[in-house]
Amino acid sequence: MSYPLFWFAPISALIALFFAWRFYAGMIKQHPGNERMVEIASYVSDGARAYLKQQYKAVLIVFTVLFLVFALLALVFKLMNVWSPLAFITGGFFSGLAGFFGMKTATAAASRTAEAARHSLDQGLRVAFRSGAVMGLSVVGLGLLAISMGFFILSSIYPISGPDGPDNLLIVTTTLLLYGMGASLQALFARVGGGIYTKAADVGADLVGKVENSIPEDDPRNPATIADNVGDFVGDVAGMGADLFESYCGSILATATLGVAAFLGMPDLQVKAAVAPMLVAGLGALLSVLGVFLVRVKSGADQKALLHSLDRGINTSALLVAIGSLGMLYVIGLPNVLGIWGAVVTGLVVGIIIGKATEYYTSHAHRPTQKIAEAGATGPATVIISGIGTGMISTTIPVIVVAAGIMISFYSASGFDSTNVAMGLYGIGFAAVGMLSTLGITLATDAYGPIADNAGGNAEMSELPPEVRERTDALDALGNTTAAIGKGFAIGSAALTALALLASYMEQLKAALLEAGDMLVFPDLREIMPADASYWDFIDFFQIDLLNPTVLVGIFIGSLMAFLFCGLTMNAVGRAAGEMVAEVRRQFKEKPGILSGTEKPDYARCVAISTVGAQREMKLPAILAVAVPVIMGILFGPAGVVGLLAGALGSGFVLAVFMANAGGAWDNAKKYVEEGNLGGKNSTAHKATVIGDTVGDPFKDTSGPSLNILIKLMSMVSIAMAGITISCQVL
Amino acid sequence: MSYPLFWFAPISALIALFFAWRFYAGMIKQHPGNERMVEIASYVSDGARAYLKQQYKAVLIVFTVLFLVFALLALVFKLMNVWSPLAFITGGFFSGLAGFFGMKTATAAASRTAEAARHSLDQGLRVAFRSGAVMGLSVVGLGLLAISMGFFILSSIYPISGPDGPDNLLIVTTTLLLYGMGASLQALFARVGGGIYTKAADVGADLVGKVENSIPEDDPRNPATIADNVGDFVGDVAGMGADLFESYCGSILATATLGVAAFLGMPDLQVKAAVAPMLVAGLGALLSVLGVFLVRVKSGADQKALLHSLDRGINTSALLVAIGSLGMLYVIGLPNVLGIWGAVVTGLVVGIIIGKATEYYTSHAHRPTQKIAEAGATGPATVIISGIGTGMISTTIPVIVVAAGIMISFYSASGFDSTNVAMGLYGIGFAAVGMLSTLGITLATDAYGPIADNAGGNAEMSELPPEVRERTDALDALGNTTAAIGKGFAIGSAALTALALLASYMEQLKAALLEAGDMLVFPDLREIMPADASYWDFIDFFQIDLLNPTVLVGIFIGSLMAFLFCGLTMNAVGRAAGEMVAEVRRQFKEKPGILSGTEKPDYARCVAISTVGAQREMKLPAILAVAVPVIMGILFGPAGVVGLLAGALGSGFVLAVFMANAGGAWDNAKKYVEEGNLGGKNSTAHKATVIGDTVGDPFKDTSGPSLNILIKLMSMVSIAMAGITISCQVL
Repeated sequence: MSYPLFWFAPISALIALFFAWRFYAGMIKQHPGNERMVEIASYVSDGARAYLKQQYKAVLIVFTVLFLVFALLALVFKLMNVWSPLAFITGGFFSGLAGFFGMKTATAAASRTAEAARHSLDQGLRVAFRSGAVMGLSVVGLGLLAISMGFFILSSIYPISGPDGPDNLLIVTTTLLLYGMGASLQALFARVGGGIYTKAADVGADLVGKVENSIPEDDPRNPATIADNVGDFVGDVAGMGADLFESYCGSILATATLGVAAFLGMPDLQVKAAVAPMLVAGLGALLSVLGVFLVRVKSGADQKALLHSLDRGINTSALLVAIGSLGMLYVIGLPNVLGIWGAVVTGLVVGIIIGKATEYYTSHAHRPTQKIAEAGATGPATVIISGIGTGMISTTIPVIVVAAGIMISFYSASGFDSTNVAMGLYGIGFAAVGMLSTLGITLATDAYGPIADNAGGNAEMSELPPEVRERTDALDALGNTTAAIGKGFAIGSAALTALALLASYMEQLKAALLEAGDMLVFPDLREIMPADASYWDFIDFFQIDLLNPTVLVGIFIGSLMAFLFCGLTMNAVGRAAGEMVAEVRRQFKEKPGILSGTEKPDYARCVAISTVGAQREMKLPAILAVAVPVIMGILFGPAGVVGLLAGALGSGFVLAVFMANAGGAWDNAKKYVEEGNLGGKNSTAHKATVIGDTVGDPFKDTSGPSLNILIKLMSMVSIAMAGITISCQVL
Repeated sequence: MSYPLFWFAPISALIALFFAWRFYAGMIKQHPGNERMVEIASYVSDGARAYLKQQYKAVLIVFTVLFLVFALLALVFKLMNVWSPLAFITGGFFSGLAGFFGMKTATAAASRTAEAARHSLDQGLRVAFRSGAVMGLSVVGLGLLAISMGFFILSSIYPISGPDGPDNLLIVTTTLLLYGMGASLQALFARVGGGIYTKAADVGADLVGKVENSIPEDDPRNPATIADNVGDFVGDVAGMGADLFESYCGSILATATLGVAAFLGMPDLQVKAAVAPMLVAGLGALLSVLGVFLVRVKSGADQKALLHSLDRGINTSALLVAIGSLGMLYVIGLPNVLGIWGAVVTGLVVGIIIGKATEYYTSHAHRPTQKIAEAGATGPATVIISGIGTGMISTTIPVIVVAAGIMISFYSASGFDSTNVAMGLYGIGFAAVGMLSTLGITLATDAYGPIADNAGGNAEMSELPPEVRERTDALDALGNTTAAIGKGFAIGSAALTALALLASYMEQLKAALLEAGDMLVFPDLREIMPADASYWDFIDFFQIDLLNPTVLVGIFIGSLMAFLFCGLTMNAVGRAAGEMVAEVRRQFKEKPGILSGTEKPDYARCVAISTVGAQREMKLPAILAVAVPVIMGILFGPAGVVGLLAGALGSGFVLAVFMANAGGAWDNAKKYVEEGNLGGKNSTAHKATVIGDTVGDPFKDTSGPSLNILIKLMSMVSIAMAGITISCQVL
């Protein structure tokens, strides 16, 4: 490696992984609780294992098929770099590995958190949060390690110094983007399949348990209750983790590619520009570890102190990254250090503001959610109308903040020169990298939530003393707040990452042109397009402007994709939950002893039903997400593809924020009533807000988060298929 | 006028208006019913008059202010043609006039339809449908008359033959576009204000009447029932009429402008190309009249025969337009007659397919709506989830059909030459004109619905024999089907019109450049841009490509606008309905005799409350729709504006279809249960679907249709502000 500072990235990644291991080992040493607690925990971990096994089986088949297709494209048709299929597989593998670590930790941590909560609130927090940190640091460590080692290996195969350096560097970075494609596909399974799984189990358990048989939440007599507990991990640990693994890797890789374009004609700077996002990410990984250590409360702390300690950890990490990245960029020695640094800081700030806005619109400490609860006085219809109205309005701040972030990072990095598009886009990429740089700790707060939630479930089912449940409830309530913020953060980072990917699509077209074999049927593209073609050349040639009807059609189809994907996943939850309802009814009917507590329900069967249902239901949306960009590329060429991505990004981002916030607000409107407001439990308002909450479940946990995957996956597919697009355009 | 064939357009318009008058006179001659019926009718017409008076008052203020602003821009700053302010006022005036005629006819027709239905079903249909045709033919006649006379007058002021002919023609057509801006602003009040009015009254009347006091729909004891009946006219006659008036005029004017661009350098053909859309529209107006005469059924006809006769009228008109427009285009003598004709036919076919798809997804004769009703077995939450899922999926066909229509009309008109963008865009314009050419009869079927609905209300309140109510119910059921189809048609035509307007924005920039005074601060734009600048020159200069961050930010903000507008109007209905609920409760409490039938409720006060509420609630969305394009233009220039329009169009179109179809499906799911399926009235499924229907009310009648206005109005505002945009860009 001609650039020694590079090694900072893989070393930081290893340090992050070391601490992930230490936190895991520390958690495992904790007491797992009494016999009943261990038994309950084993049901959940068995269920989680069964789900993961089934998912990885499906993943294996799809990856094998796509690997063969890519190998064919690479080796026979030369429409892809020969290393691309390998990068693709690696990305999928590492994302799956991070998910596996996270799940293994989370399932082991639940009973230990409950046990720790028997002693004190702060011990419970410590176990739960550090277990969450295992997920966060695994994602960051594995992601960054694989990217940096991939870069090292590929740049040994394609020497990035010497006369072919610039071309080789373009090949290396664009080939590595396929690593992101693998992560993206894995995320599709984890997030969409997981989202359907968790809500099918949740809605199914509630409908037969709470509504039909009036047994409480987390009651061990309910056969679906273990599936519901597994679902929390499947959706919010593995799903969220894979989603952010993809954003993390995608943003680093896209920015590396954009860096190569930004310093065209300056080979030394190109290498530095490609490595710079990895170095900033490495710095963020280290500072995230530091942040995790800052999350601790005194014995006997209250709810407010808990939230404060989480905030301290995250904010300190963010502040230190903001300061440290200036030094880092200075040491790297790129021109316009302050401008690029401005982009990094912009990304950090955008992430924080989105989090605050999400909290404002979804927490029942604020007026919007309270108003939704108040609409319950006139029944469920007005709760739904009010939630949808408020959810739609709540998209304003996130969209404006992201839009402002795009402009500021663009202008900052381009030195306020709007014609310096390449540098400006590099800045947008860095905004995404900056936003995600503290992922090690922000993801820890996300993964912490379901651990605390499950600890409560474990305490309930193990019939621990009420003060334990009170403590786990306090931990869980904190988890609900952080989960809502985490969702906003995940959407915002997905939008910025997708934008960076969209920009790097141009580079991928260039690379494809550089490498494509004789299959290239597009009229003499290589002769028209010089190897150092600028953005403008590409835009002119492919007519990627807003009066080209293929671009407009692309925007329409892209918007459609967001709504269609959402609609399909909404209906999927309905169908899969229906099967769960039928199964639970069957068990209650065939084994009447279950309800009286004398017979044991068949938990595993419910887990299996949710698993099979999720796998089946995700097929159609998954196929659409992969096939539509390919079809658009073949029919309409790059103009249609870019239109598609822009349309899906615009609609999908706003739709995702709407779904997540409406769902979160309905959830908390119900909690607001349950806390004794507006008549409290069993009032008209309560019944109305319970219906709102049920509607909100697939909004916030299935369809909304699935859109994050859609907008990134379609970009990744387009990038993978760039070679085909430029050689097979029909119209 | 140098082109005699031109006169066909105004003459056709006059013929359409003549038949509108004849149908009106024929209806007025009918017996208005007994004393009670006339009394009820007078309440409704008083209410409608009160609403319109209030609305026109607000409209007058806004138009006066904007007229002065435009006059300032035109006369002092020379950023607009001097005749533009006048064209703007004229458009608003004629749209208002058409709405006034339609409302006057509809309110008079309701009791006469009820009276006619005492004799037979076919007499009822005849009275109701021909009254609806008054609205359809008024819109078409007034719209086309004003456009063609405006063209005649302006082309006398700016001679369109001679050496300055081409420049003058550009000025004439772009100035006329401001006529569309006036129509658009009038539509904003009629459609958004009307949409809030009608659902505030409807939801308010239902919540206190049906739910709290168990009195049936249309019961004269309910003080809000007259407001509810007025609302049907306000929303579905005046609102729908103004919406389609705007689409009709906008599509003709945009296509005329695009025609001037398509034949740059061929002055004779330019004139013909500008007039051609008016001639095709004129042909459609005549054939619509013919179609109206075909709508008749034999005495004793059933529901199916009714629908069949409506279909016959519409389909015959469409078929004759398809045939006749080929001859018309041949006589006009433009090159590529078959290609342009292909675009016209494409538009007609797109309109028909969207209508069929809408029917499939919203009629309870088909599976999607039945499934939503079946979800009622597990309560309201699953009805809502299923309706939202199905509504989102139902966007697929309309979006794909419109996308295909765009491609086909573009390629057809451009002679399959993708570089001939100007001709292709002219083709897209013609697709919109073709789709709207039979508006005279399609709008008649829309306006017929609320007349039949109100006839039923009148029969109920006047206690006519049950067989009369049965007949008006049959007419009303037919009206529900046509209303759903009409909504799909309105959205589809709005999308195509907005697209044509987006394309003509470039021409407006050119015209602004041609006319702008010395205020032009943009660096020497006129020297860089030749008068005959092509699309490419503009796109290059203004960077209207998809990697320009301002375009991407525009797309984000555009998507946001669609959701924000929707959310604001949803919440507006909630608030205004709340006031209605309070008022009805107050009347019941203060005058206990109302419920026992001994005291008369104060209908007028309820009308006033809905009116004031609607006017107040529409302020913020209206200001946003007008201000955002202006701000985007000033901040980001044409690139930001085009991005904004494309983003709003993409998201807004799909969102509008989703809202309209979900709302329609919920409505019919309830009717499906009420017809005795799934347990019938008062079953769990019924209660659940009633909640779905209430949620759907603002979806389909307020927020969804409002999006049609948003996407067109923002285009129109951008067009009006083109002069400012090119001279004041900040970034």
